[in-house]
Amino acid sequence: MKKFCSTIACLTLLASVSSSQFNPDSVMIRSIFNEVLANGECYENLRYLCKDIGARLSGSEEADKAIVWGKLTMEGLGMDTVYLQPVIVPHWTRGSVESGYLIDGEVQEEVQICALGGSVGTVGKLRAQVIEVKHLEELAELGREKVEGKIVFFNRALDPLLINTGAAYGGAFDQRSKGASEAARYGAVGALVRSLTHALDTFPHTGAMNYEEGVTHIPAAAISTVDARMLHGKLKENPEIEFQLQLSCQNLPNVEQYNVIGELRGSENPDEYIVVGGHLDSWDIGEGAHDDGAGIVQSMEVARTFLALNYQPKHTLRVVLFINEENGNNGGKTYAKVAEEKGETHVAAIESDSGGFTPRGYSMEGTDHQYATVKGWQDLLEPYNLHLFRRGWSGVDIRPLKNDRVALFGLIPDSQRYFDFHHSRNDVFEQVHKRELELGASSIAALIYLLDSDGISPNEN
Amino acid sequence: MKKFCSTIACLTLLASVSSSQFNPDSVMIRSIFNEVLANGECYENLRYLCKDIGARLSGSEEADKAIVWGKLTMEGLGMDTVYLQPVIVPHWTRGSVESGYLIDGEVQEEVQICALGGSVGTVGKLRAQVIEVKHLEELAELGREKVEGKIVFFNRALDPLLINTGAAYGGAFDQRSKGASEAARYGAVGALVRSLTHALDTFPHTGAMNYEEGVTHIPAAAISTVDARMLHGKLKENPEIEFQLQLSCQNLPNVEQYNVIGELRGSENPDEYIVVGGHLDSWDIGEGAHDDGAGIVQSMEVARTFLALNYQPKHTLRVVLFINEENGNNGGKTYAKVAEEKGETHVAAIESDSGGFTPRGYSMEGTDHQYATVKGWQDLLEPYNLHLFRRGWSGVDIRPLKNDRVALFGLIPDSQRYFDFHHSRNDVFEQVHKRELELGASSIAALIYLLDSDGISPNEN
Repeated sequence: MKKFCSTIACLTLLASVSSSQFNPDSVMIRSIFNEVLANGECYENLRYLCKDIGARLSGSEEADKAIVWGKLTMEGLGMDTVYLQPVIVPHWTRGSVESGYLIDGEVQEEVQICALGGSVGTVGKLRAQVIEVKHLEELAELGREKVEGKIVFFNRALDPLLINTGAAYGGAFDQRSKGASEAARYGAVGALVRSLTHALDTFPHTGAMNYEEGVTHIPAAAISTVDARMLHGKLKENPEIEFQLQLSCQNLPNVEQYNVIGELRGSENPDEYIVVGGHLDSWDIGEGAHDDGAGIVQSMEVARTFLALNYQPKHTLRVVLFINEENGNNGGKTYAKVAEEKGETHVAAIESDSGGFTPRGYSMEGTDHQYATVKGWQDLLEPYNLHLFRRGWSGVDIRPLKNDRVALFGLIPDSQRYFDFHHSRNDVFEQVHKRELELGASSIAALIYLLDSDGISPNEN
Repeated sequence: MKKFCSTIACLTLLASVSSSQFNPDSVMIRSIFNEVLANGECYENLRYLCKDIGARLSGSEEADKAIVWGKLTMEGLGMDTVYLQPVIVPHWTRGSVESGYLIDGEVQEEVQICALGGSVGTVGKLRAQVIEVKHLEELAELGREKVEGKIVFFNRALDPLLINTGAAYGGAFDQRSKGASEAARYGAVGALVRSLTHALDTFPHTGAMNYEEGVTHIPAAAISTVDARMLHGKLKENPEIEFQLQLSCQNLPNVEQYNVIGELRGSENPDEYIVVGGHLDSWDIGEGAHDDGAGIVQSMEVARTFLALNYQPKHTLRVVLFINEENGNNGGKTYAKVAEEKGETHVAAIESDSGGFTPRGYSMEGTDHQYATVKGWQDLLEPYNLHLFRRGWSGVDIRPLKNDRVALFGLIPDSQRYFDFHHSRNDVFEQVHKRELELGASSIAALIYLLDSDGISPNEN
């Protein structure tokens, strides 16, 4: 490309400038974007969180460090109050042994595996025949006769036809979350799950699994999409093939960790809260950069930006760094429980937990009137290429706040690359783009500014 | 993130399915996306173009290879006609010597440089004091007295506040395109230009420069943004600092190469043409993956998809792989000239030359009526997250076709990452995302389908 389409860009700029001459909201939103793009600290904060602390699963020492760092960083911003909220979290550890071998007669081939979070370990080495299924329903069709004593290999790929990769993830999610329990019902001794990613890559992606009540807890591990393809091929050639699994993961007693909460006190309605947050914990591989370091540093950036612009919100802004989203959501549940016990009024909450990619807009849970209010802001936000104003899921951490008055939002970044990194060793700082991260932070701050200054009441009143 | 917002995605899907029950255009567009996302060949084609051919500057042997490959690939698709259109192109070569040294008294420090395309070489080693400017206008202020005999260092950064990175590029572009000539007017002996990227990276980005008539041709090279920052710092400490430049690049005699043209013959209006294209040439470093391998393989994917879906266009579809966009645009100019000589009617043309990133929409040059027609298709395209329907620049290659009847379009992908790779050794296949590339190809094919089936007449009639 020789000459880029500066005409388009100029038109956008002109549009935003000319409307900003008449609209104070527009001026403020432009100031927010300018502040973050020129002086943003979120990218360097993310570097620290990823590189100096790293992976930080609930219960781990690194999660403790992240909590301390979160508190110090928010104190450093000069927020009005910063405090810790105790949360009881599970403490699952991967342990040092994690190995998988494909055994085809005399030939043993090592296969990279990765225990699913929450899985029990193996007792010594677990060796069994492998049986492949695509859907949980197939287990019932196969019946105990064909499943008993075997390792069930769940191999349904993410649907490439869905434009939103999150929908494809949702459509394959049951294999990981309850595949092991469903397989155990028919006497299976282990579960191997194809990684939940569109990418053809060579490393496994982990994630939470849960044991249902009343079934044997069998070990479960992820394998990469490339290995899933390979295993599928080998099974076609030889259905007698075996897999040997060894996992030393274990569930330790629960421990106390913390949500980290920072407040900017409201000038007019200090007892009404607007929450912005992400989750501080991550899986124990990679660096939790997109999931959800991005949401953490973007949430703190909102407070930094308001302080830099001398914007004191009317409502109290709470930045909440939630703990334990990945395997329990005890941070989100505890926050909502305490809020209810204290009789706190939450006006709105927004979560960023879909990666640090170019923002496309917002999803929302709330009343028709609230949705109409937000749609009314569309013209203010479109100059920043924010086009999605959809009703839909907000976020795991803030969802327990749901009632008939609060407006809940999720930032929607572009979804195409997210599952390439998600829950894998590849979710590292280098995969986050500075400007994309900053545009996300700006988009959250802009929405919060509008929620705070214009209000988001549930009814016409 | 534990549970992704499948609700949102389901809503999108439902919206597209329910509308598709009533609208044949919607069904066809869904078929186009399905075909590309499930069976697309553009990603593997890009791999070949980047990895087996590589960089392919006009006049080079690799450009010859790319022309042969483009012709064979389109013939392999089963297009009705594939042929070569001769184009005279410049032949600039970098040569084997390219070195830069910062000389600060006794200390010599090597600095990575990269001749700008079109630059003359140095006669042996060129050593001179450096003087920094941010704007071309500063040269006049400094005057011949301060500039003469020096190397002018153009160090204006891309504006980070512009949301569209292309606008920022456009705002810094003059340094590279005419900095050397402007400097030469005041007696400068060389030009160093800060790379045109937002990224703080350590490698230079090249690109075309032009000599104005009547001024001395002085050598010009790019340096990385990190080195530009370093040089700026050193100059503050010691304004007497020198730079030593050695370049063996040269302009060789023009050669004949080709636009590659493939046609799907129109069923109703075979003598009316719709063009889709990108440029086959690239700079001589990197692999020209985003710029513009992406546009090339997406354009061919449109034809493959129409053939796979048994869609015979009403108008003749021409896939044009233009040669020489980067340093002359002789491919685009020749194509338009020949079309005019033959009295061919072009209904519409669309170019993809802004990278293979997630598509956001389209820019358009045409009449008010044409723009209104396109806006009328917005509801059909929004389910695919295509939101931008803007008037603005279309593309370098197709622009010479402009008249008062043709509608010209540019695909607008997300712009945030483009200049990280642009014209650098980092513009390689690995930086292109399969699904993003495919979504771009689908978006082009969907627009062409609408242009072809619904028509895009310039006036009401």
